[in-house]
Amino acid sequence: MGYSIEISLRKLADAVQKPDEAACAAAAARQESLAKPPRSLGRLEELSIQLAGITGQVYNRIERKRIIILAADNGVVCEGVASAPQSVTLAQSINFTKRLTGVGVLAKHFNVELQVVDIGINAQVHCPDILNRKIAYGTKNIASEPAMSREQALRAFMTGTELARQAKDDGVDIIGVGEMGIGNTTTSAAVLCALTGLTAEQAVGKGGGITEESYLRKKAIVSHALENFVPDQSDPVDVLAKVGGFDLAAMAGVFLGAASCRLPVVVDGYISIVAALAAVRYCPNVRYYLISSHASYEKGYIYAAQELGLKPMLLLDMRLGEGSGCPLAFEIVSAACAVIRDMATFQQAEINDDYLEEIRKGDKFTA
Amino acid sequence: MGYSIEISLRKLADAVQKPDEAACAAAAARQESLAKPPRSLGRLEELSIQLAGITGQVYNRIERKRIIILAADNGVVCEGVASAPQSVTLAQSINFTKRLTGVGVLAKHFNVELQVVDIGINAQVHCPDILNRKIAYGTKNIASEPAMSREQALRAFMTGTELARQAKDDGVDIIGVGEMGIGNTTTSAAVLCALTGLTAEQAVGKGGGITEESYLRKKAIVSHALENFVPDQSDPVDVLAKVGGFDLAAMAGVFLGAASCRLPVVVDGYISIVAALAAVRYCPNVRYYLISSHASYEKGYIYAAQELGLKPMLLLDMRLGEGSGCPLAFEIVSAACAVIRDMATFQQAEINDDYLEEIRKGDKFTA
Repeated sequence: MGYSIEISLRKLADAVQKPDEAACAAAAARQESLAKPPRSLGRLEELSIQLAGITGQVYNRIERKRIIILAADNGVVCEGVASAPQSVTLAQSINFTKRLTGVGVLAKHFNVELQVVDIGINAQVHCPDILNRKIAYGTKNIASEPAMSREQALRAFMTGTELARQAKDDGVDIIGVGEMGIGNTTTSAAVLCALTGLTAEQAVGKGGGITEESYLRKKAIVSHALENFVPDQSDPVDVLAKVGGFDLAAMAGVFLGAASCRLPVVVDGYISIVAALAAVRYCPNVRYYLISSHASYEKGYIYAAQELGLKPMLLLDMRLGEGSGCPLAFEIVSAACAVIRDMATFQQAEINDDYLEEIRKGDKFTA
Repeated sequence: MGYSIEISLRKLADAVQKPDEAACAAAAARQESLAKPPRSLGRLEELSIQLAGITGQVYNRIERKRIIILAADNGVVCEGVASAPQSVTLAQSINFTKRLTGVGVLAKHFNVELQVVDIGINAQVHCPDILNRKIAYGTKNIASEPAMSREQALRAFMTGTELARQAKDDGVDIIGVGEMGIGNTTTSAAVLCALTGLTAEQAVGKGGGITEESYLRKKAIVSHALENFVPDQSDPVDVLAKVGGFDLAAMAGVFLGAASCRLPVVVDGYISIVAALAAVRYCPNVRYYLISSHASYEKGYIYAAQELGLKPMLLLDMRLGEGSGCPLAFEIVSAACAVIRDMATFQQAEINDDYLEEIRKGDKFTA
């Protein structure tokens, strides 16, 4: 079974296309024709061009929006690397469905759909609004054994691709990725190290709330896991299986799946960007479909962001996780779509030709 | 007449209150009770507390939103310090009313009212949707004489306060400030220097598009104006009159007026932050009512931002002006209101007491 998933995933990845160059060029030309100094709307312009490349259309609308939240437990929490008990993974997953958590409230406020997915919660889940895609009751403890089998990693990865493609089939215009999994900054740091060659010292953050003692333990566990299991840097599935988590593997799948059906996808925070990096290592073209959100202050974030060429759009000092930055990121993308669609061209704005010439030489109205 | 305005403005300023401490404390306590690691929603939490202090209520809604755009011309443009001709001030002011410009499109998209005000356009304005509050047909050229009389500065300043207070009377929940005035990065830099003691070398930016030659001229004009007219650093009205503009003076008035009626107000970009600094120098309590927007890359921005304690919330590389960052900033403030209002408390989230204790010690779900 693992072998056939392996082949399906590779096929999916190989079919991921680069952006539509003609649509990008048309969007860029349209931006140049609009009544403003060239590039003065900065990243709103870049986003409109990126979106054109993704969808093949110059004009896009962000109407249906969805955040896919992957919830899973991590065996490593028994080592005391997390500040919260494992039961919180389930409790908060249920609270997502009631729109009571941070991302829940923001999703409701901005009219965003939430899809909560049990990809490996370590409990029986009796909540009808949580989608059951459980691979197992949590991963193994990476302090002593690999997190999961390769087949499990492949299944989680594949599940993620299916969730993204389902969103596209449902008529969703943009998706974001969230997670809930106590212990997942530890696994994320391990995956980041394995993919990049960073040391635990460079990549493991304090998360938050853990004591100095827990922090030292967290770094030691990541170091030892990397030494013990020797994840293959050139094989993201091996990395995810040996030192990752079900959430990470499925999130990587969501990124790949989104790219495979030309759906823009928002990367939100530390766990998310590590999963995105794994997806891009598996399939480099995925990077064209990624849109950033807020900045994460977790230590390794910046390394992943640099490699992916992602700069944060929001500076809100948020570190809740859950995909809580996505609803605001969607609003920014939606603003970008409005600008390219509705702004007047220089001609429509009745700004005369002399000015047009001046403004094209320069790049600002006021000086 | 100048004298009576002087007294009215001082009275208005002296009556500006500090934030409501009890409401701030209640909002902070409510944030602590919500089911998330303390402060993990970062600036969304800070905004909710700031808003409570402004309105005196823990729960706020951002429903009616308005951007007040002050349009005026600057005599200094005849010196070749701007990349665009003066006629663009009027042309774009008309385009604002048609929702064709950057801020126009974004305002329409996010359901924000635009109030376009002629505070000193150098032209007859025959557009019924532009509010006539013209002080004069543009300012004088600060390369050779002070921009305006003290009485004119006072009238523009007072007009701004009235516009903000009218918004409050109209039931608007938050306002933002925009501007249109060719040449106003030159006057803004001059005002910034006069208020802070910065040199032209430190404060004058390239704006954009101007040649190296124009840039040198721009710096020289600012330096000479400061030497020639010796604006009184301790008197913001004198500074605005001698080296400012009608737009800047009225914008400073909007900030003061908003504070005087406890209305939150968004500072958007370089011109706006210089006007806000003038308002805060006139009345220090104004600073509690200010909310930041995106980062400006104009050279002097950072000095004003530091003194005002404002950090940008959006990193979008925008440099269009017009108040174009306000609509997205309003969405962030609105998100902050939703979070404090609708998130579950730990008790409602049915997260047990042990965890509650753990999480209060630490500050993050995942580690």
